[in-house]
Formats: sequence, structure tokens, C-alpha cells
Amino acid sequence: MDNWLDSKLDNLVTALHPCGKCPASDAVPNRGKVIDVLKQLVALLFPGCHGAGPLADGDPAGAVVRDNLRAAAQALADQCARAFAYAGGKSGDDCHRAGEEAAAALFDALPEIRDMLAEDIVAAYEGDPAAQSTMEVVMSYPGLLAIAVHRLAHILYKRKVPLIPRAMSEYAHSRTGIDIHPGATIGPGFFIDHGTGVVIGETCVIGRHVKLYQGVTLGARSFAKDADGKLVKGIKRHPDVEDNVIIYAGATILGGNTVIGHDSVIGASVWLIHSVPPNSKVYNREPEPVVAAAGATATR
Amino acid sequence: MDNWLDSKLDNLVTALHPCGKCPASDAVPNRGKVIDVLKQLVALLFPGCHGAGPLADGDPAGAVVRDNLRAAAQALADQCARAFAYAGGKSGDDCHRAGEEAAAALFDALPEIRDMLAEDIVAAYEGDPAAQSTMEVVMSYPGLLAIAVHRLAHILYKRKVPLIPRAMSEYAHSRTGIDIHPGATIGPGFFIDHGTGVVIGETCVIGRHVKLYQGVTLGARSFAKDADGKLVKGIKRHPDVEDNVIIYAGATILGGNTVIGHDSVIGASVWLIHSVPPNSKVYNREPEPVVAAAGATATR
Amino acid sequence: MDNWLDSKLDNLVTALHPCGKCPASDAVPNRGKVIDVLKQLVALLFPGCHGAGPLADGDPAGAVVRDNLRAAAQALADQCARAFAYAGGKSGDDCHRAGEEAAAALFDALPEIRDMLAEDIVAAYEGDPAAQSTMEVVMSYPGLLAIAVHRLAHILYKRKVPLIPRAMSEYAHSRTGIDIHPGATIGPGFFIDHGTGVVIGETCVIGRHVKLYQGVTLGARSFAKDADGKLVKGIKRHPDVEDNVIIYAGATILGGNTVIGHDSVIGASVWLIHSVPPNSKVYNREPEPVVAAAGATATR
Repeated sequence: MDNWLDSKLDNLVTALHPCGKCPASDAVPNRGKVIDVLKQLVALLFPGCHGAGPLADGDPAGAVVRDNLRAAAQALADQCARAFAYAGGKSGDDCHRAGEEAAAALFDALPEIRDMLAEDIVAAYEGDPAAQSTMEVVMSYPGLLAIAVHRLAHILYKRKVPLIPRAMSEYAHSRTGIDIHPGATIGPGFFIDHGTGVVIGETCVIGRHVKLYQGVTLGARSFAKDADGKLVKGIKRHPDVEDNVIIYAGATILGGNTVIGHDSVIGASVWLIHSVPPNSKVYNREPEPVVAAAGATATR
Repeated sequence: MDNWLDSKLDNLVTALHPCGKCPASDAVPNRGKVIDVLKQLVALLFPGCHGAGPLADGDPAGAVVRDNLRAAAQALADQCARAFAYAGGKSGDDCHRAGEEAAAALFDALPEIRDMLAEDIVAAYEGDPAAQSTMEVVMSYPGLLAIAVHRLAHILYKRKVPLIPRAMSEYAHSRTGIDIHPGATIGPGFFIDHGTGVVIGETCVIGRHVKLYQGVTLGARSFAKDADGKLVKGIKRHPDVEDNVIIYAGATILGGNTVIGHDSVIGASVWLIHSVPPNSKVYNREPEPVVAAAGATATR
Repeated sequence: MDNWLDSKLDNLVTALHPCGKCPASDAVPNRGKVIDVLKQLVALLFPGCHGAGPLADGDPAGAVVRDNLRAAAQALADQCARAFAYAGGKSGDDCHRAGEEAAAALFDALPEIRDMLAEDIVAAYEGDPAAQSTMEVVMSYPGLLAIAVHRLAHILYKRKVPLIPRAMSEYAHSRTGIDIHPGATIGPGFFIDHGTGVVIGETCVIGRHVKLYQGVTLGARSFAKDADGKLVKGIKRHPDVEDNVIIYAGATILGGNTVIGHDSVIGASVWLIHSVPPNSKVYNREPEPVVAAAGATATR
């Protein structure tokens, strides 16, 4: 092995070594460090329940909370500065300043995010007969982790931080199977049950107290192309979902002009590419499958 | 940054610091420690194959197995005691005792669980043409990890341990995309292939030698509400699946009165909300899509 | 607790201690070490972007790249040798040699794999309106991680290394929800968007510049059985997909004789069990659901 290796290593190093086009290491965010900050923030939002951060009686003066906040803010500002530097078009000082401002915006929003998550927790507890306590929701519900990460990433998305919001949302996707683009706008009291396979597109606008089940797609119908045949980026292409809507498992709702009116119920596996008015009930026609009973003996 | 931080940190600490309502740190289970115990137990059930625990020739007297068992039992009893304490209604001593009893019940069940898992492994090997060996099933099949975790969590669920069974099942869900509520009753020889998106509800009862594919939902049809409009918890709302049933990808079977008779085959994407007798074959009518051949030149 | 434990530990150790049938610890691959090698290789393919390995300016002579390559090659050869030893039929020396040859084959292929992944990255950037940069694709797109792992595992599959290719593909499945069997043959410029629930079977052959969405299954239609009723392993049972095909979310394409002709578009949720010619457009008939508007007041 070593002989083989020695004889080939020079060529391999040349082939795999970063060319001049690769970014310098201090000019690109580090995904691992972004995830570490994200975990710290989630722990700060749910103190004690996510295995990090102290609880009430262990930190009477809030000293640990303060230290964790400071470390997370500094690390986040640094990663955001790298993201701005990678994207180009800003001087080093401007990147540094923009990184701090983005981190500041996120930290300013933390109390409001915690309040929205409190509504999300209640929505999950009240919306799932299997939930035994709100603590169970906080500790174990993938839908809560996904929306918590989303509410954090969305703040950075609105500040136009490159790379980092998507790295955060993909962490949640990997953990939960729920893929929420950080651009989506989502009101409080949001609950996704089970969640695997859910996709929520970048330009979705979702109201208050909406409930989704696993496998729901809120997606694009088709992609506009420019004169060169390239996809046009940044236009509205995903649906709006108004307040108090329930969407059952596997439903697919597509298109930037599609609006699901408030208090509607969309049945499982429904395919919907146009708007429906408030209070609609949408379901598939005759989903009855063929049953061929071989023995046709009595069932129990 | 530091100036900004210093000026805002006081307010943030106040906003995010646990209020008096948060549980004390020793009165809530630690999810990370629960997962650590779970990993130790899985390693004990598959010695050598999961990267932890010794193998036959490395541990002739079983000393390492003994040490690992002891550590896992003590850690589990401690976490269960915290879960009982969090739920309230028990004195500290009673919580401690109940935690030990729950851990004892789980450890008493380990030999039986290993025997059931041995049947699960054979079912996977015999049920998947791509499986090259039973060791491949043990090392790499997500369905096996999901059912192993379920068989452990289900013991604690039956002992009414709060919080911990769900934390365990959600660990498996996160790793595999397979969401089995710890309340479900599942016989031996169970195999889920691929598995992403599978949901098995709390009150399901599944017989022996049942095979599921990815995206199968065994769910609730609707939720009963009480006089106040709140969901009623704890009633039978998920289907029964009898012995030797195969359910193909994406099928949805709902309702607490729905029974799939033994030796039935449920086709892919079938939607089923009532019982079928034994030996049934259930499939969708005319799934034939429209094919519009543009050029209509020869296919290869 | 300790009293209970002490009284039962002997029986438990006997019940759970590996029997004589368990493999010795140096004759079975260690999944954790296989994953470590895999992460090193992914980091070498995307220097700097995956949180490991140096970037251009930090490693001018490539010394770190060289060290990482050497360590990964040696660890991989060792794990492959264990896999051959576990499978049996080879002497210890032959296992050692076969392990080195498999690792050599993988390392020889690394430059070519990097070139194919470069096409995959461009395909993702050009195929998703939400993608802001190719770096975003590298850092955060689950489809890219899945295909990168697949391209590595497929080399070992072709060298008939037992156990390890499946352990690698299952790592990607766990992280992304995308389940690609290491046996599948996949051309360059491949893009899976969102990806959760995708299943690609062992004997699939996929051309160049193919795009899939979440929940697509390229699977087997039925399994051949031998005279004893056992599944026959190793025969062609999954479809071929030719160049420039797009398959939308949730489509299911089955069977070893099924060929999707080049430049075809398969609509969402389509169920297809026969071939279609090049340039076909395949979609479901009348997917229109029933809309029952309760209030029937104006939508916005």
C-alpha cells in the first residue's frame, strides 16, 4: 500500500489541491461553526431542554446565558462577515460591519422569536392527540426544531447574508426531513406533524396557525427562463397559505399565484395548482382502490 | 460588535433567561444522555457491529459487556427518574424507584428483544434482493435501526415513562426518516425497506412478518374532540395490520377501526380507510398516465 | 438499583454476550471508521467548503492534502480488508491485498469523480432558481452530498467490496433522505432537488444531465423467486433513465425493462411501469380535486 501510495501521491495532490480559483480559508464561512452557533441559539431559546445552557436555579444571575449569548453573537458575526467577503463587492471593513449588523439583527429578534415559538409549541400540543406535554414537544418534535431553525435563518435571509441561511435550513432538513427555504414567511402557531418530506419554497407566505403533515409540498409550478434559456431567479413562484389552514399528508400545492384561503382544509395527496376561497374543503374524488379478496373468508 | 453587544446584553439576558416556570435542571431529562444510553443499548444488542462494545474474542469473560450494561442501566434509571419528577405527582423517592423499575423492565426485556431483532434481520435479508448478507442488514439498514430503537422505547412506553420514549423514537426518526410512535405494538420479523417517510401511529397493532416500504402511513382518520373542542388523547385511532401483510410504497391506511387481514398485499400509493379481509390484494384502478410523445422517433 | 443490577447482571451478560458465531473484532469493518474516511474524502473533493482540509493559500505545497490523502487511503484499505475477511473465501494476505487494490481504485478515480461533481454542481446551480451561487450548492445541497457519496461508494461496489459501499450510501441516506444504492450507474450533471424520499435501485442506469425531485422512486416491479421461493439476487430489476430527463416529485418508475427515453419529462406523482420513447411528456390525467367552498365568500 505505501509503495502504491508513494508512487501516486504526487499526481493526486496536484489533481486535488485547490487551484487558484478556490476561496481562501478565511473568506468562506465554515459550515461546522455555523451549525455550532445555531445549536447554541436553539439551546438559548429552549433553556435546559436541549442539553445545553443552564436552567433557572442553576444560573440565578444569568451569567451563563450572558456568556453563551456573547460567544454565539461573536461567532455569528464572524461567519456572516466571511459570507459577505465570499460574495464579493464589499471591502473587508464593510464585510466586518455587515456581519455585525446581521448578527445584531438576529439577536435583537430573539425575544420575538421565542414568543412565536411559544405559540408553535402550543399549536403542536393542541394539534396532536399523541402529545403528552409541551415539554415533549420541545424535546422531541421535529416540526418544532424545523420552525425554530427557520425563524432564525429567516432573519439572516432578510439581511441578505449569503450562504449562511441555507446552511442553517439544510441542517434542519438533515435532522428532520423538513425542507423550509429560509426565504419563506411563516406566521406564529405553525405546526408540522411527522414532517418527513415536507418542502416549503422560498417565496411562500404562510399565515397564522397553519398545520401541515408529512410529505406536503408548497412548490413552484414552472420556472421562468430568460432570453438565454437560464432560469430567472428571485421571482414569486410559491403559493400563499392563509390563516388556520390544515394541509394533510402528501398534498402538493404549486404556483406563485395560488392562494389557499383562510380556514380551508386540503386533503391528503391532493394536487392543487390554483387558488381556493376561504373555508374550502378540497379532497380527491373517489380514491377507492380495487379490493380483490382471494379467500374471501371472514375478517375478524 | 462588542460595544453593540455590551449595550444590549442586559436586556437580552433578561428576555431569554429562564423564568420561574422553567424546570430545574435536575428535574428534566437530558436528551443527549438519553441518546447516549440508547446507542449503548443498540451496541449491546449488536455486539461489534455498531462500533461499540467488544466482540467474542476480545471479551472472553464478558467484563466489558457487564460494565457497559451497568453504566447504561444506571444512566437510564436516572433519566427515567427525572422524567417522572418532571411529570409531577410523585415524591422524589417514588420517582427514583419508578425510574429504577422502568430501567429494570427494559433490561429484563433485552434478551427477548434480541431474539425479535434476529427475526427482523432475517426478514430484511430474505425480503430484499439487494441484501448481500445479514451483516449488511445489521450495519446499514435503516429499517433495522428504527425497529431496534422502537422495541426498546416501547418497553418504557408501556411503563408510562414520560418524555423518554418519544425522545428515543425521534432519534431513530432523525437518523432514518422512519417515524414509529413508541406506543405502537409490532410483532417479530418486521421489515421496512428504504423507509424514508414511513409514519406508524401510537395505537397501531402490527402482527408478525409484516413488510412495509418507504412512505407508508398507518395513521389516524380524524381526531375526536371533547366538549371544549380540545382533541381527546389516548383513544384507539390507528389501524391494525395482521400477519404476513406487505404494504408497498406510499400507501396510506387510516383509522382505528381499520383492520388489514393477514396475508394481504396493499399496492403502492393506495388510500385505504376501511378494513379488508385476509388474503386481499388492494391496488389502484388504472394508474396509467398520459404519454405525449413529442418527436415520436424510435426508442432504443 | 445496584442490588437489582447485581442480582441480574450475570444472566444478562450470558444472554447478551456474543456467542461463538459473532465475528472477531478485527474481522468486521467498523462503520464509524468507514464514515470517517468518507468524510475525509468528501472534504478532499471540496477543499475548504466542508469544514476540513486546507484551502489554497493555507497549504501552498499541498502538504496537508498529502497527509490527509495518505491517512484516508490507509484507513480505507484496512476497512476493505476487514470486509473481504468477513465475507470469507480469501486468505488473510489476499484480503489485505484486495483491500489495498480497492482503495487504490478509489483513489485513482478521485480526479475523475471531482470532474463529474463539478458538472453536478453546475447542474444544481442552473436547475434551481433558489440557488444563489455554486458555493451554496457545495455547502448546503443534500443532492450534492448524496451524489458525491454515491460516486465514491460506486467505485468500491464495482470492486465487489462487501459491506462498505452500503455503509457509505446509508450514511448519505441518513443525512439527506436520499437512498441511492451503490450499484446504480449515474452519469455526470446529475441533480436531485430537495431529495427527501428519493429511492434509486441497485441496477438503475441513469444518463447525463438528469434531474429528479423529492420522493421519486426508481424501483423494482416485482422480485423473481427461485424454486425454493427465495428471492433471486443480482438480476436487472430497476429502470434505465436516458440523458436530459426530468422527473418531478413523487413519481414512481418501476421495472428492469423500463426505459425512459432521453429528453423526456415525467410529471409529479406519475406511476410508470413501461418504457416511453425519447422526448415524451408523461403526466397524470385529470388530477383536479373536489373543492367544496363552505362560505363561498370572495377570496382575496
